[in-house]
Amino acid sequence: MSSTDRAMVAALGVREAASRVQAGELTAAALVEACLDKIGSLDGTLHAWAYVDGDGARAAARALDGGTARGVLRGVPIGVKDIFHVQGMPTTAGSRPFAHSRPSADATSVGRLRAAGAIVLGKTHTTEFAFRDPAPTCNPWNPRHTPGGSSSGSAAAVAARMVPAALGTQTVGSVLRPAAYCGVVGYKPTHGLVPADGVIPLAWSLDHVGVFARSVPDVALVLGVLTGRGLDPVPVGAPRLALAPELLDRATPEMAAHVRALAERFAAAGATVTELKLPAEFATLHAAGQRVLEVEAAAYHRDAFARHEKDYGKHIAEMIRIGLGHTAVDYVAANRARLAFRETVMPLLAAHDALLSPTAPATAPEGLAFTGDASLCAPWSSAGVPAVSLPSGVSDRSRLPLAVQLVQAAGADARLLGVAAWCERQLDPMPAPPHA
Amino acid sequence: MSSTDRAMVAALGVREAASRVQAGELTAAALVEACLDKIGSLDGTLHAWAYVDGDGARAAARALDGGTARGVLRGVPIGVKDIFHVQGMPTTAGSRPFAHSRPSADATSVGRLRAAGAIVLGKTHTTEFAFRDPAPTCNPWNPRHTPGGSSSGSAAAVAARMVPAALGTQTVGSVLRPAAYCGVVGYKPTHGLVPADGVIPLAWSLDHVGVFARSVPDVALVLGVLTGRGLDPVPVGAPRLALAPELLDRATPEMAAHVRALAERFAAAGATVTELKLPAEFATLHAAGQRVLEVEAAAYHRDAFARHEKDYGKHIAEMIRIGLGHTAVDYVAANRARLAFRETVMPLLAAHDALLSPTAPATAPEGLAFTGDASLCAPWSSAGVPAVSLPSGVSDRSRLPLAVQLVQAAGADARLLGVAAWCERQLDPMPAPPHA
Repeated sequence: MSSTDRAMVAALGVREAASRVQAGELTAAALVEACLDKIGSLDGTLHAWAYVDGDGARAAARALDGGTARGVLRGVPIGVKDIFHVQGMPTTAGSRPFAHSRPSADATSVGRLRAAGAIVLGKTHTTEFAFRDPAPTCNPWNPRHTPGGSSSGSAAAVAARMVPAALGTQTVGSVLRPAAYCGVVGYKPTHGLVPADGVIPLAWSLDHVGVFARSVPDVALVLGVLTGRGLDPVPVGAPRLALAPELLDRATPEMAAHVRALAERFAAAGATVTELKLPAEFATLHAAGQRVLEVEAAAYHRDAFARHEKDYGKHIAEMIRIGLGHTAVDYVAANRARLAFRETVMPLLAAHDALLSPTAPATAPEGLAFTGDASLCAPWSSAGVPAVSLPSGVSDRSRLPLAVQLVQAAGADARLLGVAAWCERQLDPMPAPPHA
Repeated sequence: MSSTDRAMVAALGVREAASRVQAGELTAAALVEACLDKIGSLDGTLHAWAYVDGDGARAAARALDGGTARGVLRGVPIGVKDIFHVQGMPTTAGSRPFAHSRPSADATSVGRLRAAGAIVLGKTHTTEFAFRDPAPTCNPWNPRHTPGGSSSGSAAAVAARMVPAALGTQTVGSVLRPAAYCGVVGYKPTHGLVPADGVIPLAWSLDHVGVFARSVPDVALVLGVLTGRGLDPVPVGAPRLALAPELLDRATPEMAAHVRALAERFAAAGATVTELKLPAEFATLHAAGQRVLEVEAAAYHRDAFARHEKDYGKHIAEMIRIGLGHTAVDYVAANRARLAFRETVMPLLAAHDALLSPTAPATAPEGLAFTGDASLCAPWSSAGVPAVSLPSGVSDRSRLPLAVQLVQAAGADARLLGVAAWCERQLDPMPAPPHA
């Protein structure tokens, strides 16, 4: 296979790659080799990967090619954020060695992907313990910019065509924000829909296993496997979309104008777009979610922090210290405020097909130190409702991706994916980044 | 109707009362009058009722008798623990007047019973805020003994044939323990199966709405209405029962011997009885559940306690003070320990048809100051799994009721009720108490 052919193979989406392998037009071995090749040529610049298991991936591909097992992800290479346990690979969680482990079993989510025929190429870089201390990963659209966090490597790897899909997690904005910054689709399902066991927690009440891919149907296929029982997006003809002015007001003028223009495009294609006022509980949601995060992170890290405080990054250490100081009644009040918002906002969300907003207030910030503003993702993590980020254009000013977020009520993942697929069809195809 | 006839009518069970009203053999008015009559003659001794709404109940009965509405609880008088909101009646929660309210709407559970044709006779005494500061209620088997708490009045009212059924709540042992002490059936469903809105909370994570009646089929009928979608007990032929020696060891020799003898009787009737070892997580469960209770009670009462500390009872005040002092990370750890027990014990419970144990270590203690030992009920409240107490005899020594508890995994309420009905059929009929 020529290097051009290999690059084309590496750039295949999930469904296309799987169907070619299934049809015998492409071997899993060739697919894996093409992705490893892409990683080899780009990762010296992008630093998306913390660990690449080329030999293991090649062996898995050979076994698939020589066997008869069928699976909807047959031969599809995937990247796994380095807070998931993958049997045979180290888990570092982006931390110093005191916290590294070599798990003897896959996380449930990883095991489900493998059982469907996916091949784990390796572990992608995460910010330290999935919080704010940055990963070394660069943005494939401009390596001087952050790819976002905390699932930095997964977003960059999918954007750079190193893999068709990758696993991430979102506790505040860690799937949708890097997806937006890197110009790929990022999906965070209803809280609890995908089991989080075998994943290093940041905050149990808020942690969601999520997916990166380059199209909504690809995300839906992977998510279906992750749920353990499949998931069919509900087709919509002309969706009823909601816009919340309070959310648009948080975006830069460029991003707000972009989202308003997209809403007009969707309306021209048949959607109805109405304004939605967020419930009063929204005012205290940010503080409530932040407190729940601080406390649960402190609860998980307490013992290790007592022994290894100096080995923790600045941001996570500061958060653990704050979390250790909170009283239990304040935590309970914060958690109840979060759940009160969830209860109040759910019927508002369910009354539309999706709430449309920017995914992030702006394009990816310059530098790697700051992983970006998660304030437009955070409410939906705190509420545990599903959210998806769609790449929706490239900024004329920064030449970085623009993106929109769609949100639905808890449990309505199939409905949200149907709306997202409709919206995606109205958008111009997203080009590949310069580093791909 | 003669006074003997009235007493017989008041003593009808839920299903029999409802079917006679439905068949036109008995009016709701006569049924209500019989129960009010019984309350009038006994409550000066037993103090089961905090509030009786005779006029309202008579009006509701007249409306039913004159109307065509059908409902599975048509005309059935019920008592409601005085921490549930009932429209038109005061809610005192057994507290000083600072905390009293006059709600404008029914708790969801109460509303569902009324929609099925039940008639709320009034509010039954609760311990203060459903904790340990006692209610004035006496045990119908011996008024010098506690009826148990916190649903003291509901248990005593059903035992004394003042009503065929009553609502209670259990956070630690507040339905099953008073049911056991008063010789009636008490049922606590899976946590969350019956909505707890409109009920003054003690600890949200542990609060369960429960039912008192005098037979398992009566409890099942009321519970079905409370779930909002009905519930059919799953019939069993020969149940597989488990006995946990660790639980029997906590009982008095009399109670332990009673439960072992019952297990033999069940085995003779076809049941298999095997020993079950509780998981290691059981060792820390009590402390974990206690901490969750302290913190959540403190979180709910914090503001009122700051203003009215001197008006709180000794036990609840002491618990609120302890709860206010806990750190958030300790609360999170306690809640996770509780949920870890739940996860570990569920498959063990599901592997049998029920776990059999004493409901309480002994019969009802003497005096009203101490509502009794809840340690055998507490694990199942902490785990949120369903549990039922069956009256199983009368102590030769104390002439007070003996009782057994049956437990199943969360969500398996229909299975547990089926096993409970089988066990009930093997028991001798429970006599009425001296004060009935």
